Order: sequence, then structure tokens, then C-alpha cells
Amino acid sequence: MGEIAMTNTNHQFRLAARPVGSPKASDWKFTEEPVRDPVDGEVLVRILYISLDPAMRGWMNDSKSYIAPVGIGEVMRAGAVGRVTSSRNPKFAVGDSVLGMLGVQEYALSDGTGLTRIDPGIAPIPVFLSVLGMPGMTAYFGLLEIGKPQPGETVVVSGAAGAVGAVVGQIAKIKGCRVVGIAGGAAKCEYLCNVLGFDAAIDYKSEDVKAGLGRACPKGIDVFFDNVGGDTLDAALSRLALHARVVICGGISQYNSTGPVKGPANYLSLLVNRASMTGMVVFDYASRYRDAGRELAGWMASGRLKSQEHIVAGIEKFPDALLMLFKGENMGKLLLKVSAD
Amino acid sequence: MGEIAMTNTNHQFRLAARPVGSPKASDWKFTEEPVRDPVDGEVLVRILYISLDPAMRGWMNDSKSYIAPVGIGEVMRAGAVGRVTSSRNPKFAVGDSVLGMLGVQEYALSDGTGLTRIDPGIAPIPVFLSVLGMPGMTAYFGLLEIGKPQPGETVVVSGAAGAVGAVVGQIAKIKGCRVVGIAGGAAKCEYLCNVLGFDAAIDYKSEDVKAGLGRACPKGIDVFFDNVGGDTLDAALSRLALHARVVICGGISQYNSTGPVKGPANYLSLLVNRASMTGMVVFDYASRYRDAGRELAGWMASGRLKSQEHIVAGIEKFPDALLMLFKGENMGKLLLKVSAD
Repeated sequence: MGEIAMTNTNHQFRLAARPVGSPKASDWKFTEEPVRDPVDGEVLVRILYISLDPAMRGWMNDSKSYIAPVGIGEVMRAGAVGRVTSSRNPKFAVGDSVLGMLGVQEYALSDGTGLTRIDPGIAPIPVFLSVLGMPGMTAYFGLLEIGKPQPGETVVVSGAAGAVGAVVGQIAKIKGCRVVGIAGGAAKCEYLCNVLGFDAAIDYKSEDVKAGLGRACPKGIDVFFDNVGGDTLDAALSRLALHARVVICGGISQYNSTGPVKGPANYLSLLVNRASMTGMVVFDYASRYRDAGRELAGWMASGRLKSQEHIVAGIEKFPDALLMLFKGENMGKLLLKVSAD
Repeated sequence: MGEIAMTNTNHQFRLAARPVGSPKASDWKFTEEPVRDPVDGEVLVRILYISLDPAMRGWMNDSKSYIAPVGIGEVMRAGAVGRVTSSRNPKFAVGDSVLGMLGVQEYALSDGTGLTRIDPGIAPIPVFLSVLGMPGMTAYFGLLEIGKPQPGETVVVSGAAGAVGAVVGQIAKIKGCRVVGIAGGAAKCEYLCNVLGFDAAIDYKSEDVKAGLGRACPKGIDVFFDNVGGDTLDAALSRLALHARVVICGGISQYNSTGPVKGPANYLSLLVNRASMTGMVVFDYASRYRDAGRELAGWMASGRLKSQEHIVAGIEKFPDALLMLFKGENMGKLLLKVSAD
């Protein structure tokens, strides 16, 4: 039965209250409970890394969305990778590396639903939560299926140094586009241009975004991949080229808003430019993850696609680490390391 | 050479100043000038009806759009139908009925560019500015090409008793959809349901639009055809069904706004519902007007599609008549009758 005999305590972050604005300490409950043995059909997973994603903020609200909210008292939902330590499910063996929505905790029991075996021979474990995980899939399908970039077109991505944005920009480069990233701070902008090969970057902390887009996109924007919303979306709408495609992947600037969401005042630019704005949710493409993963892994192997992770260690850091996303303090995919590999 | 010898004075409305907010009397200059004879290649047209369209407000602004602004001192741009009174263009004969962007005036000289002969045997002359004109084409292509309604889907249209909206709703009924119109006042709503065959109508003057949509669209909105913008668009976004299509045809509630345009705060509903919002400009479909006109005329002939015109007589009424659009005072296509047929 593996490691289970040696470890019998699980720590978990549970949702204690629905946050108003930024999640605060009292919105969480840190709990400790014994790990029970898996029953027939179940596996026990020791979690290695937990994915921290902007979308988690939405899951904490009690409102209609593409997925049910996390209930009060429930373990916070999160993607994670781990190792099977005990199995009564014939599809999984002790020692298997697995990926799934395992929650913010040290151990997870699963009946195998939504649990995927991953091959640590392909890439380091954290990459399965980054380029080969939900952010990579989001970038891949959002850009290619909704944005439909053509060679020579100008692709702009906001939140460009984040987990999704960095992959969007790199795939757009692979597809032969001019790529412009919007990010906060000189270090991120330098990283985009010098490490990831973006053609230009706009530092929203030191430059007016609309002016920056005028400078960096002389022919206008053909594809805008938006992770941010708010004023950034409005600036991009004002610079659309004819027949532009706007991909609405997220709106992180608005997620902690306690007032009304700032709608894009320049939306009539869609009319003037015969442009479209389309929302996407990565889960819709689940049946194609495997093929996408193969292509992404191929680009990584050939050095055309880089994965960058920003790792914070210690499950107790979860509440503060999550807030780093909204303060723009992460560069690349933000992960919480829960136990040693 | 026809009538020209008998009439030699033209009256015109020219743009005197760029309006701030609602166009006011001093934004126009009413001018009188002699009509000159056509030179080689030209025709002279006596205008019968002038089309009054919400889009005209946009043409008065000095800002980048899908068409150049009307210059200060120029005759106001407008679609119109008229009769050829003198021709030195072999494509047009005296007595021909023609349609074109002839401007707000009594007589227009044209070199034939953009001038189309119409057949008054098919429909009364005003219909060529209504169902068989730009509003009809806008409804036809916007709904069918962008909205892509499927039988059984719910189609909602704002400005539903206006020139475009009334046609959108009727085509959607022909295509087997459930159709809900948003309009101002009981008379318009009754007209939509009792005369045009809409399934339901929401009177925004007496009912909260979001509540009305909840009542009238129990399965959500599959296609929203928006002529209005502002709070109406926001209400519709909050009621989208999965994979909904929002057609941005106009935003009349915002055209006279002197403050910032009200952006749709609920735009993240596009993400949650994997929905799209796409702008359209009818001129892009010019090469297909003829085929569309044939289909629309067929529906009219079989009684499935009604054309309603709201006619104001007298060119001198132009400034006040134009404002009726923004006050929602017209029912059906608003036309200015300039001379007797």
C-alpha cells in the first residue's frame, strides 16, 4: 500500500467565507485531518505542486458561471500534480504521477474521475501545470481556435508575462505573427522581448497603454488575447484593425472589484472594424488536450517554447501566494510547492 | 432633357458645425442654389424620399469610422430615392427611379457611382429605403451572416420597432425562431406582437429589461441583435445562453452622449457562456444586395414580411425629423418626403 502508513495527517485550505474584494485571511480555514485509506476504486495522491490561477477567484463567488462555486467549508478547488501513494483503482499504480483538480491540500483521495497520468519523462513535473497544463491549453486553444492568427498579423496579449500570456505570445511567434505583450514592470518587459522573443512589450506601469499600442502596432491589432480587462481592454479596442478578433480569456483587473465591472467603453470599435469579441473556457477543449499537449511538448523539445514557473514553497503560504496573481507579482506560472518530489 | 427647364432651385441641408450631443439647429445650414445642368456622364435626380438613419449621427463626428465624416459645409450625407429628370449618362434614362447616397437636398447630380435603378413595379417607392433598402439589408445580413439563428433558438432584438429591428424580428420568425423585441411604449410592443408576429415584447419604458428578458426568454438568449447599446445591451448580456451570438449593429443610446460611452459591464458573460459579440457594417455585403433584395421581396409578396414607413413631409423638417430617431418617436422606417411622386 506504499507510503500511507508513514503519513497520516492532511492539511487543507477550506473556503470559510465568500470574499468581498480581495480574499483575506478570514476567508480561509486551515484544517488538519487524518488521511483515510482509499476504498475500492479510489487512489490516494500525495500532492507535489498546486496550481494558482486567476480563475480561482471566480470559483469563490456564489454566482452563475461555467463551473459551480466552491461551497463554504469545502476544500478550495485547484489543479495539482502529485504521486499516487496508495491505489485501489486498477487504472493507477503506486508511484504514478498524476494531474487533476485535487484541491489545496497535501493529500487527495480520488475515484479517478478527471485524474490523468502524466509522464515525468517528457518534462519536469511543474511543467504539467504550466505549458503542458491548463494555462498552456488555454493559450493554445484560445489563440488558435478563437484568435485564428495568420502569418504577418499583429497579435497583442495582456498579462503577457503570466502563465497563459507567455505561451500565447510564443505560439503566435511560432505561427509567424508580430507579437506585442502588455505587462507590468521593466523586468517583465525585458523578459518578454529578450527571453521569449516578443517583438515589443508595453509596460503598463510606466507607459500609457493606448500610446504604447500606437507605437508597437502601426498596422493595428489583428488578434487581442485578453487576460486583464478594464482599461487595458479599452485601449486595445481603440487600436483594432479591420476584422480583428478579441479573445476574452479573463479579466483579472476586475475579479476583486467590489463596484460594478468596468465595461469596455470602446466596444463600438467592434462595429467600425467588423471585429469580434469571443469568450473561451478551456474545459470545452478537453477531448483535444492530448493532441495539443503533444504539439506543445514538441515545441518545447525543439526550444521554440519556454516554460517558466514561479514557485512558492509551503502549503501555509497559499493565501498570500494567491494574492500575488492579482498584484502582478508572479512571472510565469505561479505554483505552490507542497511536498518534495 | 425633361423637367429641368421648369425647376432650377435646389434646397439643401449642409453641416454647419460638429454637434456636441444632440444635433441642434445651429449645426445645420439650410442653403438654396440653382440646379446646374448635368455634364457628360452625369444625371440629375429629383429626390422623392430621404432616408433618416441613426448612423447619420456618427457621420457628423470627426472621428475614425467605417466611412469618412461629412465635411463642414458639405451637403449632409443620406440615402435617398428619386427620379432621373435629366441624363447625360447612357446607363440612366429620364424617368428612371433610382436609389443612392444622394444627400439631404431636393436635387442631386450624380456621375452614376453608387446609383442603382429600382423597379417601382416590385414595391412602393418608400420600401426601397426600408425593407428593400439599407435597413432591410442590414437586418438580413446582420441576422443571417453574424447571428446565424437556428430553428427553435431565441432571438432578441433591441430597437425592435425601428427600421432594422422590425425586419430582424420578422426574418427570425421566418427562420423558425422564438422572437422577442425590446421597444419603447405599449403601442410599439402591441405592434410587434399583433402585427409583426413577435412572440413577446418588452416595453423598456414600463418594465425592467433584465426582468423582462427573464420572463420572455426562459431558455436564455441565443442571438441578440443590438441597435441600442447601453443598459439594454448589459441586460441582454446577463441573459445569454451558451454559445450565444451578439450582433452589434448600432448603439443609438450612446450616439448623442457627451460623456464616455457606457461600456457593457456584463461583457464577461461572453466568457462564461462561450459567446461572441461581433460588429457589422452593411456596406460590406454590397455585392450581395441584389440576391438579398430578391429574397426579401419574395417574403413581402407572400405576406410573411411587412414594411412599415413613418413619413414626415417637407425638407425643412429635416433637423427635427432626425431627432425623432433618438427620441424613439418613429415606428418603422423614418423617411423625409421631399417632393411628390
